[in-house]
Amino acid sequence: MSEPANPTAAILIIGNEILSGRTQDINVKFIAGRLAAIGHRLEEVRVVPDVPERIIRAVNELRAAYDNLFTTGGIGPTHDDITSECIAAAFGVPWEKHQPTWEAMETHLGPENFNAARQRMATLPRGAVPIPTSMTIAPGFSIGNVHVMAGVPRIMQSMFTALEPALGRGAPISMRAVHGIGVKEGSIAAGLGEIQARFAMLDLGSYPFYRDSGSGVAIVAKGTDDAALDAAIAEAESLIAGQGIVPIRGEPGAA
Amino acid sequence: MSEPANPTAAILIIGNEILSGRTQDINVKFIAGRLAAIGHRLEEVRVVPDVPERIIRAVNELRAAYDNLFTTGGIGPTHDDITSECIAAAFGVPWEKHQPTWEAMETHLGPENFNAARQRMATLPRGAVPIPTSMTIAPGFSIGNVHVMAGVPRIMQSMFTALEPALGRGAPISMRAVHGIGVKEGSIAAGLGEIQARFAMLDLGSYPFYRDSGSGVAIVAKGTDDAALDAAIAEAESLIAGQGIVPIRGEPGAA
Repeated sequence: MSEPANPTAAILIIGNEILSGRTQDINVKFIAGRLAAIGHRLEEVRVVPDVPERIIRAVNELRAAYDNLFTTGGIGPTHDDITSECIAAAFGVPWEKHQPTWEAMETHLGPENFNAARQRMATLPRGAVPIPTSMTIAPGFSIGNVHVMAGVPRIMQSMFTALEPALGRGAPISMRAVHGIGVKEGSIAAGLGEIQARFAMLDLGSYPFYRDSGSGVAIVAKGTDDAALDAAIAEAESLIAGQGIVPIRGEPGAA
Repeated sequence: MSEPANPTAAILIIGNEILSGRTQDINVKFIAGRLAAIGHRLEEVRVVPDVPERIIRAVNELRAAYDNLFTTGGIGPTHDDITSECIAAAFGVPWEKHQPTWEAMETHLGPENFNAARQRMATLPRGAVPIPTSMTIAPGFSIGNVHVMAGVPRIMQSMFTALEPALGRGAPISMRAVHGIGVKEGSIAAGLGEIQARFAMLDLGSYPFYRDSGSGVAIVAKGTDDAALDAAIAEAESLIAGQGIVPIRGEPGAA
């Protein structure tokens, strides 16, 4: 089901705090949703610890495998913020003072506050293009097909928003859903498999849900062919109705 | 900072619904926290789509690289549930009727409801050991160092809980934290780097937080040496106090 009209993407999360269970990641869902909305296809996510060789290897594997790689985390001023120098190492380029960023940070913070730790944030891989945001004076950056963003969600979100116009748009990926309260996956699996087989250009998913208001199954169809989506969801609706259950358009809990 | 006394682990999330932005994953944080509590060290997370060759490759890379691999997702009865046969392929073993599971499901569901889709859930890689739970009649399973669990969080959690005693315990990994409202990372980075250098056996992280009740930085120390943790956090406390800010033990927002 590859769609050549949809650029591919990966996310690399650099952060011990995710691996230790301290922090609930919410960046993947944000980036995934925004990529889908511009017709990019997120194909892989990895989370690695703050260890240089692990970061460098993951960056090089993922940037080679996908059209774009988005990283989050590790671009602050502290000892555990090593993403920027690791990106330089991954690309085999010097990690050096980025003059415009350096000057902007020095002016903004005042020379007396622009200490060695903060100067690291104005040090970028050679060839990097800053991703400026209104939220922080220290930028994210792009180098080649790798886009390096903060880990703090609201800063990451402002960086992604700044970056988004440069990514270009793929063929729009639409989504349709239908669900039924009381549907059992095992009872509709065969019929659903037949629908998937008839609409091979689509991606049909089956997702059980468990709510106080009622449990059941949501069927979600994704793809770039709107007519096929409509037809496939109509068949899914019939499949649910065939169980003696009223099909409800949309995701459970959604309007 | 590798700790040979702590078994390593990876998580593989199999699910288009995470990559499309439809679903917020909460399984990583649960598994990560529980692993930390039993002294296992989560080293990597990957999310891949429901594509056989992608699943097989990730399983084989991760099971070779870490002591344990936990997978979530893709073990239901529908066409997009392909984890079990992919695990068989990854191990190069037949995917075959698992007699006790087959009989239990047939008895529980009744032969008339035990259709081909549900029979797939009683079909396991040869050598797999079921992970039974009270929540579903269809089990997860372990094969070698790979532990295959459901994607639905409450079912996954019951499977992990059932599995946990068999994992064994590593040296307990403790965590200490201190935070300060108004602390700026760039102002304490040098001092924090010195503390990390003095306590190389620990893993010190610096995490900015942004709350309506006040923004600042949390310093988190992790490791297996409780005396070193106490000493390092005391130094971090002094570092914050040196900024003219009152250090507060624990994470922000925690008691």
